[in-house]
Amino acid sequence: MPDRPLYPGYRVTPETELREQMQDRCTVDFPVAVVLPAGGSGERTGLTTPKQFVTVLNRPLISYTIQAFERVSWIKAIVVVVAKETQDLMQSIVHKFHHVKVKVVQGGSTRHRSIYNGLQALSEQTDGSAFTKPKVVIIHDAVRPFVEEDLLLKVTMAAKDQGASGVIRPLVSTVIATTTEGYLDHSLERAKYRASEMPQGFLYDVICQAYQRCSEFDFEFGTECLHLALHYCNTNAKLIEGLPTQFKVTYKRDLAAVESIFKETLSQSVCIITGGSAELAGKYQKHLSAHNVAVDIKPNTKGSNTVSLSKTWNFIQVSVNTSSLCEILDLVQACEESSHSLLYPVVIVWVLLKGNERTCPSQKTDESVTVKDLAAELLQRNVLLYGVSLDCTVVPEQLERSMERLCQITLCLIKDRNPALTGQLLEV
Amino acid sequence: MPDRPLYPGYRVTPETELREQMQDRCTVDFPVAVVLPAGGSGERTGLTTPKQFVTVLNRPLISYTIQAFERVSWIKAIVVVVAKETQDLMQSIVHKFHHVKVKVVQGGSTRHRSIYNGLQALSEQTDGSAFTKPKVVIIHDAVRPFVEEDLLLKVTMAAKDQGASGVIRPLVSTVIATTTEGYLDHSLERAKYRASEMPQGFLYDVICQAYQRCSEFDFEFGTECLHLALHYCNTNAKLIEGLPTQFKVTYKRDLAAVESIFKETLSQSVCIITGGSAELAGKYQKHLSAHNVAVDIKPNTKGSNTVSLSKTWNFIQVSVNTSSLCEILDLVQACEESSHSLLYPVVIVWVLLKGNERTCPSQKTDESVTVKDLAAELLQRNVLLYGVSLDCTVVPEQLERSMERLCQITLCLIKDRNPALTGQLLEV
Repeated sequence: MPDRPLYPGYRVTPETELREQMQDRCTVDFPVAVVLPAGGSGERTGLTTPKQFVTVLNRPLISYTIQAFERVSWIKAIVVVVAKETQDLMQSIVHKFHHVKVKVVQGGSTRHRSIYNGLQALSEQTDGSAFTKPKVVIIHDAVRPFVEEDLLLKVTMAAKDQGASGVIRPLVSTVIATTTEGYLDHSLERAKYRASEMPQGFLYDVICQAYQRCSEFDFEFGTECLHLALHYCNTNAKLIEGLPTQFKVTYKRDLAAVESIFKETLSQSVCIITGGSAELAGKYQKHLSAHNVAVDIKPNTKGSNTVSLSKTWNFIQVSVNTSSLCEILDLVQACEESSHSLLYPVVIVWVLLKGNERTCPSQKTDESVTVKDLAAELLQRNVLLYGVSLDCTVVPEQLERSMERLCQITLCLIKDRNPALTGQLLEV
Repeated sequence: MPDRPLYPGYRVTPETELREQMQDRCTVDFPVAVVLPAGGSGERTGLTTPKQFVTVLNRPLISYTIQAFERVSWIKAIVVVVAKETQDLMQSIVHKFHHVKVKVVQGGSTRHRSIYNGLQALSEQTDGSAFTKPKVVIIHDAVRPFVEEDLLLKVTMAAKDQGASGVIRPLVSTVIATTTEGYLDHSLERAKYRASEMPQGFLYDVICQAYQRCSEFDFEFGTECLHLALHYCNTNAKLIEGLPTQFKVTYKRDLAAVESIFKETLSQSVCIITGGSAELAGKYQKHLSAHNVAVDIKPNTKGSNTVSLSKTWNFIQVSVNTSSLCEILDLVQACEESSHSLLYPVVIVWVLLKGNERTCPSQKTDESVTVKDLAAELLQRNVLLYGVSLDCTVVPEQLERSMERLCQITLCLIKDRNPALTGQLLEV
């Protein structure tokens, strides 16, 4: 699945791969910092909010990008460079989403000036804190949330060895030169050129020297750090082939793509909390697995262990009646304690089993009121609660069909993560 | 809203604009044909189906692109060039979606060979049919569904006047040249270059001559028709700035973006069929309008006029009980007769009003069974039926809140267009 990020979903890493990764990681025994220029105005999306601050699933895009770097143990410091007007907003994002490796600094009037400000903030302290001069600095875009450790490692090691490195991708279109009158002058041979993307890595001394030496014209009109390293420090960057997933959010449609990738990744795993009905949970698991969903089964929700260990954002609480209300509340509390509901909206599908004794219509009304009231409260806490009632009194073949239908409804709720439908008691 | 296509949604064209458009259109008094190369394998999406045949909202992507050309009155002939293995598939798509201007021809081993095959198919007949030699030919990508008449007109007129024309876009990334060892050689000054996109237009004689004169190397490795026109016919193409909406589906994420744009566009309008409750329909309209949805109100559904005139794919049937079943069936029939449900999934939200006399729980069960059974049947006909029950007996302030909630649920159903939730009877 090359077109999907590894997080926040489920992924079982084979032991050999883990070992290799550990070996690789051990080689980063020097300080690495990140500069994230985030001062853009986002004109091309057609939105009033700059795109790095647009929320996707209730969180600003830039927080996802920061999280991608914070997850990497050998990255110690992240400098986010923002326009003066958005400094407070950026600080509040850092605070709200518990970002701990971040320093926010004010940018300049152009991209290069902002990056240079960010670099300077990395040498202000000499006390051995995270924000002292690093060996290698990674420069990235705030609007490329899908950057993975593997690629960061390659960029970092190449920068350490060669002085500079950058990610490239094949060109999607032919590139042409135009005449001043708006006609074709010539077209470039597509195979000889590449799109220069992010992240890029530099020896801290190389990129700082390049900025110290470069011209006002470069500061004003330049767009390419690799060019500065080449021109002013005679350093030819090592180029590394990137993946299409690491795309930059440029247009409004890219935000739709980001949301769709998050939703798809989030919906690759669920945790079923059986509530005493282990047999049914087993059937449920079988059906969900047939749709390529990784399923964990837990007998109950006591303690936050269940949540923090399962690494999923989707919980299915199977209950025989609404008296299991307190189990739902336990689960929500655990999600909050483990920051689950802070990072992504948590989905809880509350499956209410119907036996013979439960077909009395007044109880149906009670349940529907309980689910609705609770859902309204949980929505404020970034938890999406949906009810589904399942009639278990049917003959076995029909139960199979019901389980498949339950499974489809569950997957639909998990994939769409739609707040307008929380509190509904659906019927299989 | 620059990032949205004009169709299939609602759009009121100001009269002056209409007049201008008509004047422009009148100037195309010469034959124009289209060649759509559609032989790509779609490797970059990571999917097994070539991307032009991937279905979005139950229709293959290429059918949307064809539709975009068929809507333009002055385009008379469309040649779709496909690989031998997909000729039957392509013919079945043409048949199923009633494409009337299309001829399917077999492609060659490369893009240029396929386009040349397509061009030759345009001069096989001399009997005055649509597939005789055109004055101007437009070449487009099968995987760019959002092409609009306005741009086609500009490309066509420029091609007629200058011999060749092509759409360009600013570069999103800096373009760099690489050394054979994988290092940066130099970077291009971004402002001087553009991405060459589609559509492109040519005088038929110019592009045919270019293909007759070009080398085997061009046929094998070339990617740019504008280059051939320049090199072999000394024709400098006129370049026309395109819009970001006209993007090419290259990666899997682009398919998510296409679907999201279709869904957003489809959800910009609804038609409320009052079923006798005009007052409530008026309130409903007020709330929907506040969410920027264009609302049409019709008293009933008799005849297909209601559907074909309203140009929306979303219908809200307000009913006092499920005896209005036949109204729903009338509506579905009208949708089928006007090809509505052929082109996009039609959403019907069936709002069931609850008065005092209707709180009896057994009736609730009846209704929920009716909605479920009917929805299962309609899903096969590309109609998505959802039920929503609304209690009208509440005090006025509460009714206002209920209407807003109803509005949110309606919009969510219309935007998500999720088949797994059809047949549910939701509660406001």
